[in-house]
Amino acid sequence: MTLLSNTISAIGPLDSKVMEKVQQRLNNLTKPQGSLGRLEELARHIAGITGQESPKFKHKVIFTLAADHGVTDEGVSAYPKEVTSQMVYNFLRGGAGINVLSKQINARVVIVDMGVATELENAERGMRNFKNCKINHGTGNFTKGPAMTRSDAMKSIETGIKLVEEEIDNGVDIIGTGDMGIGNTTPSSAITSVFTGCRAEDVTGYGTGINEFTWSNKVESIKKGIALNKPDSSNPIDVLAKVGGYEIGGIAGVILGAAWHRIPVVIDGFISGAGALIATNLAPQAKDFIIASHCSQERGHKYALDNMKLKPLLDLNMRLGEGTGAALAMSLCESAIRILNEMATFGEASISEKIKEE
Amino acid sequence: MTLLSNTISAIGPLDSKVMEKVQQRLNNLTKPQGSLGRLEELARHIAGITGQESPKFKHKVIFTLAADHGVTDEGVSAYPKEVTSQMVYNFLRGGAGINVLSKQINARVVIVDMGVATELENAERGMRNFKNCKINHGTGNFTKGPAMTRSDAMKSIETGIKLVEEEIDNGVDIIGTGDMGIGNTTPSSAITSVFTGCRAEDVTGYGTGINEFTWSNKVESIKKGIALNKPDSSNPIDVLAKVGGYEIGGIAGVILGAAWHRIPVVIDGFISGAGALIATNLAPQAKDFIIASHCSQERGHKYALDNMKLKPLLDLNMRLGEGTGAALAMSLCESAIRILNEMATFGEASISEKIKEE
Repeated sequence: MTLLSNTISAIGPLDSKVMEKVQQRLNNLTKPQGSLGRLEELARHIAGITGQESPKFKHKVIFTLAADHGVTDEGVSAYPKEVTSQMVYNFLRGGAGINVLSKQINARVVIVDMGVATELENAERGMRNFKNCKINHGTGNFTKGPAMTRSDAMKSIETGIKLVEEEIDNGVDIIGTGDMGIGNTTPSSAITSVFTGCRAEDVTGYGTGINEFTWSNKVESIKKGIALNKPDSSNPIDVLAKVGGYEIGGIAGVILGAAWHRIPVVIDGFISGAGALIATNLAPQAKDFIIASHCSQERGHKYALDNMKLKPLLDLNMRLGEGTGAALAMSLCESAIRILNEMATFGEASISEKIKEE
Repeated sequence: MTLLSNTISAIGPLDSKVMEKVQQRLNNLTKPQGSLGRLEELARHIAGITGQESPKFKHKVIFTLAADHGVTDEGVSAYPKEVTSQMVYNFLRGGAGINVLSKQINARVVIVDMGVATELENAERGMRNFKNCKINHGTGNFTKGPAMTRSDAMKSIETGIKLVEEEIDNGVDIIGTGDMGIGNTTPSSAITSVFTGCRAEDVTGYGTGINEFTWSNKVESIKKGIALNKPDSSNPIDVLAKVGGYEIGGIAGVILGAAWHRIPVVIDGFISGAGALIATNLAPQAKDFIIASHCSQERGHKYALDNMKLKPLLDLNMRLGEGTGAALAMSLCESAIRILNEMATFGEASISEKIKEE
């Protein structure tokens, strides 16, 4: 048995008994039944995930997984490849969007080198929020052959599972996923196309802000990669190896690890959606442990979410990645459990019940 | 000149120079331009409202305005009238939804008796978060005559303006509006129908959870109230007096006061929407100072927002009121200004600029 197969077989169902109990409490709180809408659904969902009637979020962690992509050689991105490592340093100095939004909700950001092209030499020195899990110096260009070996695809997913395990020792209560990788909307579109059956042009967006010419080139590269490598949609490891990325595999692993350990996992945008497609095709029951944060402006994301029947909490025209949407939605998750834990019941507040209607 | 006419004439435009400067900074932050979508729009908007390049939210206040409604005699609500005062006590003890969500974002809730039917005798003793601004013991039943006098309609709006002024002395940076009042979706539907021109049945929802029979009765009561009182849509004071409520007038005043003092005002759901219709029909330029928090499940809210060309930040099937949606959206407002104030620029982080595309 591998860590991956162990993990998949250990993922259980939501705790329906706890969900029923929590629903009873929600119905008795001093508000019309159901009037907090999705916050109440979220509270019940989180209770079902954790198996706790009064879940608490003391330790929030957002994993921002970074890697490079060989397909950038085809000119699919608006930024040069070296921006991936430059942004990792920006994360470590606290200057990026994910740092700011995580600080607001008191979440810890864990930056992981899953496969950045350059060595991040200074990053390891005493940086407790940085992990070197580099599998390779960027993927191969999938228009010329597979992005990575099957063994490295497995390794990237198992790395994600281990990342969760390490944080469990620190008492993590809720996890967010995020990404950094110049060019990574290209493999994400390829993965989304393979699993949803949508055409490449329907699931390919403008990434960091490319023009029409670059977009056409990006679509052609995706089509070429799929035609050349023939990823098998019934085999998620094959899809990840042929047209994926190390951070995408890592995100899939984080999702599976979180599901195994019954920790709510708030997924970010399009790249996290591609990771979730890998994870839920490996383990369909993992879907129950996912909270979809937002619908990205990147056009393929909607199709990925629909395919997994995940309904995002937010729709704010965002497309930054890094885990920024996950951070915003984690605040809503906290609102949901605070409502559950802190509101008074009708009995406690001596408030009249609903009138019996004819 | 009255306080109301003074306020209206003092409302200026957004500060376009500051908005331009802020846009430049947003464009230089370490992210693809515009990739934080509505958060960036919100940051620019808040800068335009406050006239500050680096706005801060140290003092957040949510006004929860309470009042009763004579039209409840027609059997339009699922809860008895005494719940309004019972809920005020719940607010003061900290057990309601708005208390929980405000605590999460470190906002102060100010509970105001604008016209609760009973005397709230114990509420005033040493409760710094309670204000007695009672105009009357509930409105009149608008199916029999006007809800209030024209003079009391003016008074309710001016009370809202004064509430803002009092908080300015405490250094308020951002304001949220909220409501409590059994039966208050009925006047809100009437107001929405008058200003949008929509039929009563299209803007009348299920409130706290009424059945079809009660809903039909509610629609008929609204039609009767409008037919009998003939509110003049070109005269917002007339509309408020004939089919409104004291808390709705108060919310209109809070919006106008906030606009005058250039403080962002985050409006909650359907009842706040009705207040905003009164405010923006009195002073169209006040619209620029409003941030719409969420789209309520109460069906008339969408029409009210569309009428004012306001786009809500959230859509979470909520319909509780109290200011709960405003509290959630205030957190997004804080995210927006933190992004503006705390993220590094490309220059600061030594990150490569975008590639020039052909």
